[in-house]
Amino acid sequence: MLKVGLLGAGRIAGVHATAISGNPGSTLVAISDINTAAAEKIAAQYGAEARSTDAILSDSTIDAVLIATSTDTHSDLIERATAASKAVLCEKPVDLSLARAQACQKAVAATGRPVMIGFNRRFDPNFATLKNAVDAGEIGRPELLSITSFDPAPPPVAYIKVSGGLFRDMMIHDFDMANFIMGAAPKTVTAVGSSIVDPDIGGAGDVDTAVVTLTYADGRIAVIKNSRRAVYGYDQRVELLGSEGLLQAQNMLENTVVKSTTQGVTGAKPTYFFLERYMPAYAAEWAAFVEAVNGGNAVPVTLDDGVAALAMAEAATLSVKTGNPVSLASVLE
Amino acid sequence: MLKVGLLGAGRIAGVHATAISGNPGSTLVAISDINTAAAEKIAAQYGAEARSTDAILSDSTIDAVLIATSTDTHSDLIERATAASKAVLCEKPVDLSLARAQACQKAVAATGRPVMIGFNRRFDPNFATLKNAVDAGEIGRPELLSITSFDPAPPPVAYIKVSGGLFRDMMIHDFDMANFIMGAAPKTVTAVGSSIVDPDIGGAGDVDTAVVTLTYADGRIAVIKNSRRAVYGYDQRVELLGSEGLLQAQNMLENTVVKSTTQGVTGAKPTYFFLERYMPAYAAEWAAFVEAVNGGNAVPVTLDDGVAALAMAEAATLSVKTGNPVSLASVLE
Amino acid sequence: MLKVGLLGAGRIAGVHATAISGNPGSTLVAISDINTAAAEKIAAQYGAEARSTDAILSDSTIDAVLIATSTDTHSDLIERATAASKAVLCEKPVDLSLARAQACQKAVAATGRPVMIGFNRRFDPNFATLKNAVDAGEIGRPELLSITSFDPAPPPVAYIKVSGGLFRDMMIHDFDMANFIMGAAPKTVTAVGSSIVDPDIGGAGDVDTAVVTLTYADGRIAVIKNSRRAVYGYDQRVELLGSEGLLQAQNMLENTVVKSTTQGVTGAKPTYFFLERYMPAYAAEWAAFVEAVNGGNAVPVTLDDGVAALAMAEAATLSVKTGNPVSLASVLE
Amino acid sequence: MLKVGLLGAGRIAGVHATAISGNPGSTLVAISDINTAAAEKIAAQYGAEARSTDAILSDSTIDAVLIATSTDTHSDLIERATAASKAVLCEKPVDLSLARAQACQKAVAATGRPVMIGFNRRFDPNFATLKNAVDAGEIGRPELLSITSFDPAPPPVAYIKVSGGLFRDMMIHDFDMANFIMGAAPKTVTAVGSSIVDPDIGGAGDVDTAVVTLTYADGRIAVIKNSRRAVYGYDQRVELLGSEGLLQAQNMLENTVVKSTTQGVTGAKPTYFFLERYMPAYAAEWAAFVEAVNGGNAVPVTLDDGVAALAMAEAATLSVKTGNPVSLASVLE
Repeated sequence: MLKVGLLGAGRIAGVHATAISGNPGSTLVAISDINTAAAEKIAAQYGAEARSTDAILSDSTIDAVLIATSTDTHSDLIERATAASKAVLCEKPVDLSLARAQACQKAVAATGRPVMIGFNRRFDPNFATLKNAVDAGEIGRPELLSITSFDPAPPPVAYIKVSGGLFRDMMIHDFDMANFIMGAAPKTVTAVGSSIVDPDIGGAGDVDTAVVTLTYADGRIAVIKNSRRAVYGYDQRVELLGSEGLLQAQNMLENTVVKSTTQGVTGAKPTYFFLERYMPAYAAEWAAFVEAVNGGNAVPVTLDDGVAALAMAEAATLSVKTGNPVSLASVLE
Repeated sequence: MLKVGLLGAGRIAGVHATAISGNPGSTLVAISDINTAAAEKIAAQYGAEARSTDAILSDSTIDAVLIATSTDTHSDLIERATAASKAVLCEKPVDLSLARAQACQKAVAATGRPVMIGFNRRFDPNFATLKNAVDAGEIGRPELLSITSFDPAPPPVAYIKVSGGLFRDMMIHDFDMANFIMGAAPKTVTAVGSSIVDPDIGGAGDVDTAVVTLTYADGRIAVIKNSRRAVYGYDQRVELLGSEGLLQAQNMLENTVVKSTTQGVTGAKPTYFFLERYMPAYAAEWAAFVEAVNGGNAVPVTLDDGVAALAMAEAATLSVKTGNPVSLASVLE
Repeated sequence: MLKVGLLGAGRIAGVHATAISGNPGSTLVAISDINTAAAEKIAAQYGAEARSTDAILSDSTIDAVLIATSTDTHSDLIERATAASKAVLCEKPVDLSLARAQACQKAVAATGRPVMIGFNRRFDPNFATLKNAVDAGEIGRPELLSITSFDPAPPPVAYIKVSGGLFRDMMIHDFDMANFIMGAAPKTVTAVGSSIVDPDIGGAGDVDTAVVTLTYADGRIAVIKNSRRAVYGYDQRVELLGSEGLLQAQNMLENTVVKSTTQGVTGAKPTYFFLERYMPAYAAEWAAFVEAVNGGNAVPVTLDDGVAALAMAEAATLSVKTGNPVSLASVLE
Repeated sequence: MLKVGLLGAGRIAGVHATAISGNPGSTLVAISDINTAAAEKIAAQYGAEARSTDAILSDSTIDAVLIATSTDTHSDLIERATAASKAVLCEKPVDLSLARAQACQKAVAATGRPVMIGFNRRFDPNFATLKNAVDAGEIGRPELLSITSFDPAPPPVAYIKVSGGLFRDMMIHDFDMANFIMGAAPKTVTAVGSSIVDPDIGGAGDVDTAVVTLTYADGRIAVIKNSRRAVYGYDQRVELLGSEGLLQAQNMLENTVVKSTTQGVTGAKPTYFFLERYMPAYAAEWAAFVEAVNGGNAVPVTLDDGVAALAMAEAATLSVKTGNPVSLASVLE
């Protein structure tokens, strides 16, 4: 039974608390947050204790921590937790700074402790099914990958300003999805972007609509499309053309009801946002972490994966600025 | 090259004229109608002559006639045309009177000439594909058939009064479809019906909404649903459950465009009515007739098929009146 | 906080235990089963006690019981629990005997306690959405209802023999669904059935494939199709034609992945059986019970609803035997 | 009645001959081809004459010519036909050389004769419906366009060598589609490509898989994906995200039959290739030409459109070579 400390008590921490409690192989022992009331509320709900982060990290009976705090604390907490011999599952991104994330990567390597990065979409039943089909050779050799990832509505501009920008904050999930599906890092990253949804996002130095093209050493190509606004809901699709067919993971819909009238044939919208769409993915992600740690096996998404996605975000950010393709190697140097 | 005379110059005759002209194995020679202007117009369009029906039937150079006149003339014209050694394709139904149709059946049998009944839906690419899959054993042994057949809007009550009623006028297509898919006639026919769409249809002694259940000697079951009104368009679906799976032939849509907004995800309606939906079926029906007659083979839908469907309509009409199941044998006696 | 005793510790009881524990308005206090090991296992998992049924019913601190025992005990337990002032949620069917269920109905009425029958499908998000759309007038006046309900595989013949037959055991859900959607009981019930899936089911005096047609006093019609075997999974669809459109609740699929190859375009199967399909419905059903009982409101599915569905099953059973339509009134006399 | 000469008697010329003959406003008078047997065959089928191109162009009773010859003859024939006062519909592309096409543009402008370029996809019912919905404001302001265009199988390498390359031969249709939907030319063109389908295509100096990103002056973005091989059939989809929704034009399928078995739920493949998919588009294209010319109105797709698409192909070709974005203005200088 994995004894778990939860760092952070915000909305996504609540999702993780449910997953930790619902998993027969783990138990939620303690939770910390600078907002102690929030920590106490989650603790009460799941029969855990609200403690300080220090108290959690120094408790040798706690086997693992789940880091669901703000992004700027991730690298520090990963380092402290692994130094304290905890297994770690940390929300994405590792850090907004590639250099800082790489330093964290080195520090963690020295401890030998497992650190899993919360790229929850790998555990979505639809994307996982697609990946399994690719690995089983069902469409032959992959050639051309397309990822569509639109949020239902843009966040406040105040959030945009501290987010690290669309590539580090939003498309980072899609960079990891490309790495997951393609099983390799790209050679070049070419990005275009604009702030056509909201000029204030442009005023804050960011884009809200972007297309990134990735090329691979063996000739494969991937393209990722992001928009901060799809009024019909969360649009999360993956499509892969291979030598023997096409795989598509389509949206989850709110329900299966279809209405035919003189106005046409109308079905439900996609589920609204990530909590609705990815709830099963969060549970599966945690189950995979517990299974790996309890079994002494490698975690399925590593800190290296987190750094790789961040490097692609860095390259895309640079590509939009310069207007030219950026080689991934140049960013990682 | 099959030389063809067309009897009738109404709307459906125009559809047939296009099919006859467009088929490389047939040529439209002459057309007749009591409305001579209508006959002349079609004749001009396709390089044929407007003649009297007598002139067409007595022209020994004409190989085949297509009968697209009003239902009450079908039996007579079939008998006269076969007596004149023509091959015949006649629009459904053979007759509103089962006894008259059976008499016609005997008369034709004596001539040995081929008579095909225009159950065009057998040649619809979707239903034909479904039938081929059944025959290929793709879903094992058929067990439960469902036919949904809704018109977009009811005809005028004046038409209803002379139509022979919903079972002879509308569901007769579905009776033939059941015979086509199941490859056997049913044992019993159980019908319920009401005039919920338009009470005036009830006032005229007919129903506008009906469900008919068919049982077969080997335990198979079929159910047919008819409504005179589906405001979203022509709803024509067939579904067959078998021991190893399910086959569904779904509606044809006006186009493939899908719109996602805050209101939902909306696609196009089904094609509006039989001309839009079954245009390819009419061409394929004619091609099958030409191929059979030119090749000296049996036509794929026979006068016997026409009589069989009419007997089922008779049984359904009786079942609605009596409120009890009717054995098909009792109707055919 | 509703204190709950769970009677029964079988598979479906486990589902209910999860729902009771997961609901913020209820807590699972005790569980009973003749298989005490099974009761103890569920009790341990959810922090409850394994007790005898008598002990649960006589514990005045327990507010409600959920009856998930075998069908032959339902009526007795409903009567005992309501006599002990408990609110009751009982799995369907109330009883295999209509007379016994009606006696239970009277006994319960004398206590004034709320008894909800577990027609979980009313709480399925898809069917609930369809019902809401009907009630909102989105397709005008309902005219023709179709319910398709196929199990993935037939149960053992030993089960068939004690099940009460397809109409009481399986189609009872669909009878209730018809009552739910149509908001009225039918006037006549006409059933046909056969044992084409497995002759041994026929040997046990039951059918495995059936079509039931319902007529309503106002001219509406409903048709229900049941099969004990759909090899592709649990097929649960509802379709309603109205004066201004059509509503369809389609199947839930295992995932959204679609594969296009030279063999066609293939998507996932429907979820396999009721546990997969209706898990959200069980949680919503319990939530509705808790909300009604805690709020002092009428429960949304009543014992009367359970008796009504059972009467339709009785009528259908009789109709198959006699080969004729059966008026519902004649069964209820 | 428009009197038409058809230049070319290959496969696509046969399609056009059917459209010309089937249109009530035009008649096919003559046809020419260096393969005189082919010309005579089409002439016989449609009651026209086989003549030399010179004879057609010098016949003052012929109002219009349809040019369906090899690409290298297009510019010359357009110039000769307009000089002879014919209205012209010419198959795409105008020329493989942008400079030559621009010279042709000037020559034609001097004659004032209408020249329509055969971008048939604008007349596909699905894409035309999508365009109408955009223009009607159904999804608000367009922001992000995606075009997927995959052929079922690559052409022979011998063809590749003389084709002008994927961008001029295949993606030119998609460049025109982008111009059609967006209503403006892009500012920059960024292309990546590889020969992952067939290395021999790379050996011939071409790519078989490519992604092109277009940016627009107002911040809109478009992305086009091409592959020479989609084994499941012709994949032709357009998707446009706007401020108030998403529009998708999906593939046409061979039929509507769906089969559910233990293997999944399988529907038909997309129609195989352009003749199957775009047959209705060719007829609608010709109808639009006839309507414009007979009515004295501007043709709906102009020589300018042909040059614009060719310039984008030129820019994309250059972008793949240099690895950098290319401004469209730099190509048009």
